[in-house]
Amino acid sequence: MKLLKEKIRQEGVALSDSILKVDSFINHQVDPDLMRQIGEDFAEHFKDQGITKVFTIESSGIAPAVYTAMSLNVPMVILKKQTSKILQTDVWQTEVLSYTKNIRYDLTLAKNYVNKKDQILIIDDFLASGEAAAAAIRLTEQAGATVAGIGILIEKSFQSGRGRLEELGFEVYSQARISRLAKDTIEFADD
Amino acid sequence: MKLLKEKIRQEGVALSDSILKVDSFINHQVDPDLMRQIGEDFAEHFKDQGITKVFTIESSGIAPAVYTAMSLNVPMVILKKQTSKILQTDVWQTEVLSYTKNIRYDLTLAKNYVNKKDQILIIDDFLASGEAAAAAIRLTEQAGATVAGIGILIEKSFQSGRGRLEELGFEVYSQARISRLAKDTIEFADD
Repeated sequence: MKLLKEKIRQEGVALSDSILKVDSFINHQVDPDLMRQIGEDFAEHFKDQGITKVFTIESSGIAPAVYTAMSLNVPMVILKKQTSKILQTDVWQTEVLSYTKNIRYDLTLAKNYVNKKDQILIIDDFLASGEAAAAAIRLTEQAGATVAGIGILIEKSFQSGRGRLEELGFEVYSQARISRLAKDTIEFADD
Repeated sequence: MKLLKEKIRQEGVALSDSILKVDSFINHQVDPDLMRQIGEDFAEHFKDQGITKVFTIESSGIAPAVYTAMSLNVPMVILKKQTSKILQTDVWQTEVLSYTKNIRYDLTLAKNYVNKKDQILIIDDFLASGEAAAAAIRLTEQAGATVAGIGILIEKSFQSGRGRLEELGFEVYSQARISRLAKDTIEFADD
């Protein structure tokens, strides 16, 4: 997506060969109009998949996901990060290891907000190892629903996430694909 | 705000004299069109305050705050919850005690995304004790910016939050004010 790539070129900060800061428009300060256009782009891409709900992972995916859901005219569901395992009988849970934060948490989905007929679009800000997206897929499948697509704002194409999700049989649509990072250098996969 | 109150009447679940679950349209599953209308209502209410940024607290306030920011045509900034105190010289931080979760965290704001000329609108989903809103005010004032208003989706008017914020000299606009909760009973302050 052209606009997102331009914004990354202008404001993204490559801190190392693996860390890209996009704090000024996605993760900390958020540009609402960019989020709206990102949401419309996802909605356009997935418009023929019969999406019934948009899932996202707390919390950086919420802003783009809510605009995607609005454009598709379906609800959004925020998969919650729980750091402790409290026994709750009315939820689906799956453990996730966050590489960036080096913590484990239980991604949680209340059973009320998913059913076997749901066609789920998973939206997240970053795809790196694919750990978070794979957890969202596990939760969806635990609930008996179908993952109809995965939409990512920024893919680190030099990491294993895309391959991992494609091996599981899922379509991944990334709005910006980064082939290489180095201090002060950002290269896109399709430049 | 009429629509929000209707939604609370229809889908809110009073679990006790202090706990109101709104998981089906605000906190877990999110109704994007309601969020858009909530954002437009806040923007209309605060349109003459010269707002330059909308602040919200991670993560339930993000969806309504991003629509508020879009309607006001300003950026949104997500105040982050950090559970550990890592020394970072380029951030403002203030400690918050979460009564509902019984944890302490450091609410964090990067210095880059606030300046002394900013007129800040703080948006949050709930106002109960006012602890989170007071922390957002402290951060704003640490940065030398001005709190121009506080917008709340659901106020528990039987708790101390509104009084506390008004004593500090701030205007609080709550879209739904609840005067009493009891198991399966929700009463509004202006009914």
